[in-house]
Amino acid sequence: MSHSKEKAITRRRFLVRSGQGLVATNALSTLLASRATAQQVPEPPGKKLGWAIVGLGSLSINQILPAFAKCEKSKVVALVSGHPEKAQKLALRYGVSPKSLYDYKNYDSLRDNPEVDVVYVVLPNGMHAEYTIRAHQAGKHVLTEKPMANTPADCEAMIEAARKAGRKLMVAYRCRYEPFNQEMIRMAREQELGPVKAIVADHGFNIGDPKQWRLNRALAGGGSLMDIGIYSLQAARYVTGEEPTEVDAMMYSTPGDERFKEVEETINFQLRFPSGALANCTSSYGFAGQNRYRVIGTKGWAELEPATSYTGLKMRVRRGNATEERDLPARDHFALEMDHMSECALDNKDILTPGEEGRRDLRIMMALYEAAKAGKTVKL
Amino acid sequence: MSHSKEKAITRRRFLVRSGQGLVATNALSTLLASRATAQQVPEPPGKKLGWAIVGLGSLSINQILPAFAKCEKSKVVALVSGHPEKAQKLALRYGVSPKSLYDYKNYDSLRDNPEVDVVYVVLPNGMHAEYTIRAHQAGKHVLTEKPMANTPADCEAMIEAARKAGRKLMVAYRCRYEPFNQEMIRMAREQELGPVKAIVADHGFNIGDPKQWRLNRALAGGGSLMDIGIYSLQAARYVTGEEPTEVDAMMYSTPGDERFKEVEETINFQLRFPSGALANCTSSYGFAGQNRYRVIGTKGWAELEPATSYTGLKMRVRRGNATEERDLPARDHFALEMDHMSECALDNKDILTPGEEGRRDLRIMMALYEAAKAGKTVKL
Repeated sequence: MSHSKEKAITRRRFLVRSGQGLVATNALSTLLASRATAQQVPEPPGKKLGWAIVGLGSLSINQILPAFAKCEKSKVVALVSGHPEKAQKLALRYGVSPKSLYDYKNYDSLRDNPEVDVVYVVLPNGMHAEYTIRAHQAGKHVLTEKPMANTPADCEAMIEAARKAGRKLMVAYRCRYEPFNQEMIRMAREQELGPVKAIVADHGFNIGDPKQWRLNRALAGGGSLMDIGIYSLQAARYVTGEEPTEVDAMMYSTPGDERFKEVEETINFQLRFPSGALANCTSSYGFAGQNRYRVIGTKGWAELEPATSYTGLKMRVRRGNATEERDLPARDHFALEMDHMSECALDNKDILTPGEEGRRDLRIMMALYEAAKAGKTVKL
Repeated sequence: MSHSKEKAITRRRFLVRSGQGLVATNALSTLLASRATAQQVPEPPGKKLGWAIVGLGSLSINQILPAFAKCEKSKVVALVSGHPEKAQKLALRYGVSPKSLYDYKNYDSLRDNPEVDVVYVVLPNGMHAEYTIRAHQAGKHVLTEKPMANTPADCEAMIEAARKAGRKLMVAYRCRYEPFNQEMIRMAREQELGPVKAIVADHGFNIGDPKQWRLNRALAGGGSLMDIGIYSLQAARYVTGEEPTEVDAMMYSTPGDERFKEVEETINFQLRFPSGALANCTSSYGFAGQNRYRVIGTKGWAELEPATSYTGLKMRVRRGNATEERDLPARDHFALEMDHMSECALDNKDILTPGEEGRRDLRIMMALYEAAKAGKTVKL
């Protein structure tokens, strides 16, 4: 007991002493200088491109619209929705002119709105192709949510529409634009863990309402793979920087579960890359939340969990007998991806995740479905 | 500062007060009683069976022989080795009679040593069958290391030898006998996480000396799968308590790497179970150390990492928005498995991991190799 008492007293004295020290060294000038740093006012933004948001579901309401406040090169100037009241409320909140509210009937008249430079298609997957192509025909750049479309043929038509219009086409692979996933890519490419031998990636959640569009084949194009497994696939591809040459897969849907009448519940898969790296991935609408991947090298491993959530990403790195947690800046993924699009459109730069990247994923996902159905390894 | 100072003082007062309270209530009799509990002397052991250890490699030296000190029903009474000096040194350390040291020529004379009840075969995989069968023919019970043998046919011959001899045959799946893996099994079987949807299991290490027996096909029977991937396979099987009905696999060995001239470096695989649970497993001699599995249910997940190491296992369980680390007693895996064998032999009980269990794994592992080579899903 006496030992604990002594420690308590010592701690109190230390606190008092260090408190006095702090006041003594803090001259007024030092205080003012440090406050000026803390309150540094950012420069005014440069030119911002005007964006139209197409589809006002929860992703637009909760993530995309608030993200404009963190953009340097992007501002929201128009909304497209089938629900005028919702559009009007959001327009008031985000300062969008009542003249710039559209529905799906007058969508093509976006062409007459010179304030709109970029159209962000945030609709169900099966509608991406049509609304992307019509936006290009209206002379606009397009950012479309992932998956790019329901089929590789639709992707092709979208790429062709962008080419004809001379406008940029980007797929919203936001993880490519945020610091944690970028650091994983850097570590893998620079072989900090030795050559990459495997990527193990798990993405899934237990999906709710059986009536939602994600469970409707025409609107979603497929099940968990198109919506959440695509993150496992993307991680394997962007970490290695390679294209798979072979895939196999196993699929499962709970019999009698009304959620999975039209689309698959789970599809787990394996990928082989030219370097010899292999990926083992899961994708499910039946799992309790999974959101992680681990990159395994010959000398260590690194993982993100959560890996691809909107916020709260965490990184652990293991080398030798030490495991580190690494802090990186938490940035708004949507602001980063939208500003990338704006910058590429403004300066005519190449987009990191163009339509061709979305088409690659669609081709691989079709091969995964084929492998699962045929029970064989499919070569790409 | 004043707030911290106040807290420090309060803490000191609390410590002083509770210290006085403690002394006041601690009468001498209470103190003595609590000391007696701390120094409780265990009862003397009951009957212990006598064990012969066959093969004095690092597993025997560093794990198995020291584990006898923690056994209740097992004692080491004989050693079998091709290196007499090594055997003599270890005999002195563990109190084995010089008369009970054997080599591979006089191995069969174990039959004439009534002190030896159980033979533990800790030889390279390709020798398990021969030395198990000869031990049974000498009238002994046998515990053999995993994998049970190189082929299902060898497993069959071993099971038949045990049957003929009327002796027990057990495979050393030590993880089945230790608390962390047993708790994972309990949680899965009782559906604490909801029905099990997936098991993701990763086992691998970066293997060293290219001349070791593990890299020799005749002695090892195969590569990483036989040695370390078997832990991923076992985990998927014992967690679900089911047998896979379909498997697929992808194999890779680094071209030109002299370690993998005869056996595979990596074989990653997928298993389908009758309940609909799927497993995604990795197995490699090229990875930086991997030793983990996660059980994913509909309502949460639980994982061990490390999962199957000799010591230091850690469990995390996720349900709702909370992740728990669970402490369980750390027990000596080898002592537990050896005592299980002794108990079953003494009381003629059924062994939890008999020869039939080893044979199941061999059949599945052969199917995995077939699936990887043929590039197709193999039904079991």
